[in-house]
Amino acid sequence: MPKKIILALAALAVSASALNAAHAQQALKPEQAIKYRQAAYSYISWNMSRIKNNVEGANYNKSEVIQAASAISAIANSGMGALYIPGSEKDAGGVKTFVKPEFFSKPQEVARLAQNFTKEAAELARVAASGDAAAVKAQHGKLGGTCKACHDDFKVRN
Amino acid sequence: MPKKIILALAALAVSASALNAAHAQQALKPEQAIKYRQAAYSYISWNMSRIKNNVEGANYNKSEVIQAASAISAIANSGMGALYIPGSEKDAGGVKTFVKPEFFSKPQEVARLAQNFTKEAAELARVAASGDAAAVKAQHGKLGGTCKACHDDFKVRN
Repeated sequence: MPKKIILALAALAVSASALNAAHAQQALKPEQAIKYRQAAYSYISWNMSRIKNNVEGANYNKSEVIQAASAISAIANSGMGALYIPGSEKDAGGVKTFVKPEFFSKPQEVARLAQNFTKEAAELARVAASGDAAAVKAQHGKLGGTCKACHDDFKVRN
Repeated sequence: MPKKIILALAALAVSASALNAAHAQQALKPEQAIKYRQAAYSYISWNMSRIKNNVEGANYNKSEVIQAASAISAIANSGMGALYIPGSEKDAGGVKTFVKPEFFSKPQEVARLAQNFTKEAAELARVAASGDAAAVKAQHGKLGGTCKACHDDFKVRN
């Protein structure tokens, strides 16, 4: 086989591989992205309520609070920004989104709010390890404030 | 005020507080429990696919894999068992569940599968930190096997 053709085939193989990789990365549909980010917020919500029950209830379960805070922090730090792909700024494939259009036009404000959220979530996980219920209660409130700040600006009331 | 009445009021206050705590704990409805556990599995699924993209694609993004593996592990270790409450073994409040009834009658088998899942998820997070793509690929497969083992036995095909 002439060297030129071999090289051309090799180049084709490389670009096919790159294409496969790119395809794998882009395989996420807007409706999937919306579902996944809503799943993340939903699971965070349950874990926030578990911590609330612990700091407001009669019994404080240190290990449950640690588990819940770790889940929140790991999700918050998991790179959820990747789920706000083009096409996911509006309802897609029958899946409703509650994000406001401004979310996509104010990246700096979004980044600031997201950073506050991940920072306070990491701090809650740190405080949870101490088992200090009063400190956890205060930090839980602080983290909840970062949720609310973003909802106020970028979530459609539902 | 007579001492007897004071004591009775104090006892009432204590039981009201215990009741509030118990109420807070039991406030979870079966349909909420189903939604929250599905949210957890959904978010795990996205993160499994992100890791798959990394180990199969042309570029390996170490920090993305660490973030994804950490989220999976923290969710797996978050005490999801608490979401399999009475009433959640069947569809509830318009929310469909895919759990088989056997899940609730074979706690030992479920515990064994759940332990395998959390163990391999923790191991994936550990391996991810090394940045060794081949090791991550192998451990990703191993973790996926624990997902499948439970689906085979306890998930209705959908």
